[in-house]
Amino acid sequence: MQQSVIQYVLSRLHQLGITDIFGVPGDYAFPINDAICEDKNLRWVGSSNELNAAYSADGYARIKGVAAVNTTYAVGELSAINAIAGAYAEHLPVFLLVGMPNMTTQRKRALVHHTLGNGEFDLFYRMAEPVMCARAIITPENCVAETERLIATALYQRRPVYMAFPADYVDRPVLGTATPLPPPQSDASVLDAAVNAIVEMVTKAKTACILPGFFVARANLRNEMMAVVDASGLPFATMFSDKSTLDETHQSYIGMYDGQLMDPEVRAFVEGCDCILGVGALLTDFNTGAFTARIDRSKCINILYDHVRVGNAIHDNIRIKDVLQELAKRLPKRSDIKGPTVSGLGEPQGKKDAKITAEYLYPRLEQFLKPNDILIAETGTPSVGLAFARMPSGSVFHNQALWGSIGWATPAAFGAALAAPQRRTVLITGEGSHQMTAQEVGQFSRYGVKPVIFVLNNHGYLIERLLCKNGEMEYNDVASWNYQQLPAALGCDNWFTARVTTYGELDQAIGHVEERDTGAYIEVITDKYVAPPVAVKLHEARGTLYMH
Amino acid sequence: MQQSVIQYVLSRLHQLGITDIFGVPGDYAFPINDAICEDKNLRWVGSSNELNAAYSADGYARIKGVAAVNTTYAVGELSAINAIAGAYAEHLPVFLLVGMPNMTTQRKRALVHHTLGNGEFDLFYRMAEPVMCARAIITPENCVAETERLIATALYQRRPVYMAFPADYVDRPVLGTATPLPPPQSDASVLDAAVNAIVEMVTKAKTACILPGFFVARANLRNEMMAVVDASGLPFATMFSDKSTLDETHQSYIGMYDGQLMDPEVRAFVEGCDCILGVGALLTDFNTGAFTARIDRSKCINILYDHVRVGNAIHDNIRIKDVLQELAKRLPKRSDIKGPTVSGLGEPQGKKDAKITAEYLYPRLEQFLKPNDILIAETGTPSVGLAFARMPSGSVFHNQALWGSIGWATPAAFGAALAAPQRRTVLITGEGSHQMTAQEVGQFSRYGVKPVIFVLNNHGYLIERLLCKNGEMEYNDVASWNYQQLPAALGCDNWFTARVTTYGELDQAIGHVEERDTGAYIEVITDKYVAPPVAVKLHEARGTLYMH
Repeated sequence: MQQSVIQYVLSRLHQLGITDIFGVPGDYAFPINDAICEDKNLRWVGSSNELNAAYSADGYARIKGVAAVNTTYAVGELSAINAIAGAYAEHLPVFLLVGMPNMTTQRKRALVHHTLGNGEFDLFYRMAEPVMCARAIITPENCVAETERLIATALYQRRPVYMAFPADYVDRPVLGTATPLPPPQSDASVLDAAVNAIVEMVTKAKTACILPGFFVARANLRNEMMAVVDASGLPFATMFSDKSTLDETHQSYIGMYDGQLMDPEVRAFVEGCDCILGVGALLTDFNTGAFTARIDRSKCINILYDHVRVGNAIHDNIRIKDVLQELAKRLPKRSDIKGPTVSGLGEPQGKKDAKITAEYLYPRLEQFLKPNDILIAETGTPSVGLAFARMPSGSVFHNQALWGSIGWATPAAFGAALAAPQRRTVLITGEGSHQMTAQEVGQFSRYGVKPVIFVLNNHGYLIERLLCKNGEMEYNDVASWNYQQLPAALGCDNWFTARVTTYGELDQAIGHVEERDTGAYIEVITDKYVAPPVAVKLHEARGTLYMH
Repeated sequence: MQQSVIQYVLSRLHQLGITDIFGVPGDYAFPINDAICEDKNLRWVGSSNELNAAYSADGYARIKGVAAVNTTYAVGELSAINAIAGAYAEHLPVFLLVGMPNMTTQRKRALVHHTLGNGEFDLFYRMAEPVMCARAIITPENCVAETERLIATALYQRRPVYMAFPADYVDRPVLGTATPLPPPQSDASVLDAAVNAIVEMVTKAKTACILPGFFVARANLRNEMMAVVDASGLPFATMFSDKSTLDETHQSYIGMYDGQLMDPEVRAFVEGCDCILGVGALLTDFNTGAFTARIDRSKCINILYDHVRVGNAIHDNIRIKDVLQELAKRLPKRSDIKGPTVSGLGEPQGKKDAKITAEYLYPRLEQFLKPNDILIAETGTPSVGLAFARMPSGSVFHNQALWGSIGWATPAAFGAALAAPQRRTVLITGEGSHQMTAQEVGQFSRYGVKPVIFVLNNHGYLIERLLCKNGEMEYNDVASWNYQQLPAALGCDNWFTARVTTYGELDQAIGHVEERDTGAYIEVITDKYVAPPVAVKLHEARGTLYMH
């Protein structure tokens, strides 16, 4: 039987590994909504709103490698756009499927709802351009070719694509056939030259190290990267956005590199190397300790998804995977280079009935983590504080280090939990960020997943108190919620909830969580300025962060 | 003392009547956040998220005529953009003030947070273009001229404008001076010709009526419009998006016109007129009863904000206000034309201990309304159901008939309540829409305003069940919340809350609300398909609505 337009697209998305599509229904999207619900390989996941749907897709893509979200025209897609932009910045291939008014309506320039009342129907398609790696309005004629182009582009660049469907085209038979586009191939001679240059630089170096970047994880190249580490014998550190790209229990791991802000031993080692082999690592503000990293570009290699930089030379048109596979074969094993020994956050410090401080909180959260956990750490003090924890084997740490849109973590944790329901998902968020998207807590229970959620309530936006000119400015305050009552209000009926203010209460609550098999939601109350060391350092580094 | 860039802008916004600015703080916006908090004429209103902030600004502008919202770069402005697009569609002048990274960062194309990592800083300014009537990136040099241009454009078109501020420019002294731009003047001869044509058509008509549109209210021309009604003696009806433009207790009001869907008497009268004098009224899908209105264009006049159409003739470059003022002087008084007598929803029907039906619910809500109320009715069954209630004197009905973005109503009600704390704000929303933005309930209590909120819980998106091909499709379901617990969880500690399932319980709850001076939150439970008559008619009119 001939497939319809939407059946073709959905079957291809399923072949990529997508089994759940997040979304909010809407009348122009009904034919897509119907098709998703009727596709036996797919589950419709109804989100509370479109921003949350797209954040959930972001979280899902971090675990499954790819995700999809479906919204209606205009009001739906625009609500989702910030989260899609985040997926662009953070290299996550998210397919945004948008239902449009049918072609009769469009041709008549009819005054219909969800428009600006000006008879123009391509405005939102145009607005999406900067945050999509490719876009198309899908017709029966272009469906197979455009779908294959969009899939190939999304998988190659690991970035979102936009697919809009006029409602009356959705169920029409698809015309023609196409085969999936193969990924671009490396230019063999450039590949050889680049690998030679890398091998030479690493071989000549007295000291060297590796900085594996988050693109490695996004492109599903962890094994290839690990093979390079093992073949080379080089120590590796990671930067903030790259944390947990490789297993932090590996013997070659030396810890987090964050410029002058943290860990002087790691800094001295990395900055003292003659050769730093970066793989998809970006020298962004938060990766470089507010631009305090001192790395000489001439000593650096960076392997990016379509080119390699060795010192100041660019080798273009080669693929990261090919480079890694060649390096694993050709790099000499250096057993002479030893980096510092990695440490985590150490033992929690303090007395049982004392108020919770950073010296207790972050080490205690580190202790709580276990192998294979998925940790979603919200932008702000939670993510920078947990960044210096040592992650257990097989566990992953996710933050949104580049895009940094607060509110991301709660729905992203839901998406991650759905993508891997057999793993434990731990969400650690500040309460200001949590308020942005808190309704998504209800989804965990609705879809039967059991996260552990820590809400750090420090009475406002703490990272902003630390970065603005006067932490007491009232814009840093947020509404006072009774967080402990929230899960029940949102339908999470059998969850464990607690509100803790002392070390003893926090320990006891964690004890309960470890004994139970339900969702858990713990509000951790601290004083207003209880911040992990790196956040205090960021406060001091505002001059370089903002280039004053 | 020389004003800074931001002081100039804020002082001008205050002169327009703005006393509260909604927003979410962020590091690139700190200098703007600081300036708002330090301005003694302005109050910073911290919203839960940027979408809610912009929806609140929309609600505020509906009452005060103008509003402002402040977000940070990228993550903030993109989260707000759907609500801003709604303000564009619905003709509300909302000033979006966006904090950008400073110029050193921009010139260096630095890899900083809240960017796509590509060194481009004008992408979001570009994305905003279709949903703003004017835009500028504000510098010390262009500040006064651009601010005046943007204000004049926003006030003339009644639509949003976008102002971005590089962080390092915000506190610099503003350069030069400018005087506010006067509004454009009508071309006197065109004005005369247009008014002549209108007067002639109305005079010759055997029957005629007026359709005052929502633009009249947006442009603060209710008095001028009322003068035309009184001078002409003509009956007036309103369409869905125009409801309560003029007082519904006025003797000339004949009710709602909604094509073939509702009220055959009003339809027969309006469609039988030789002359229909529309003023800023749009023949959109929901205004025309899903395109079932049968109005002959040659019998229509439409007075729009910059031109007039009389039959098929366009009179361009004249202002709505001038046209209305001339008409009030020159239209002959017609005491010979009588329209039907307006009725409301009648008495609630049913027995005290029976489950709540539409025949009870909507008439009972109509009875609850009192003079000067602000009613915010969410898109979906609540707004179409309440549209046929007769509003008490001085009360206003607000919906989002053209943009139709569900979730709008809850934060918009908060914005409206802040704009007029001395009036009673009533929010009526479906539970599916409410979930989208429910966290904003906490803001009412935080800022000391006391709304009455009815959450109609019909177990899913009812309007979608009625419009899609099979109402039982699972995408119409939403998470099951315990709504009654929500206000307390969100910090509304002393509110009256209730969950009602029968007529008697609803009456009792309303009785409590009327006795108390606190916020109130009533969950009204009905069966899944309990819908007002017009929603059932829309279900039947899907063919014309979607142009099948």
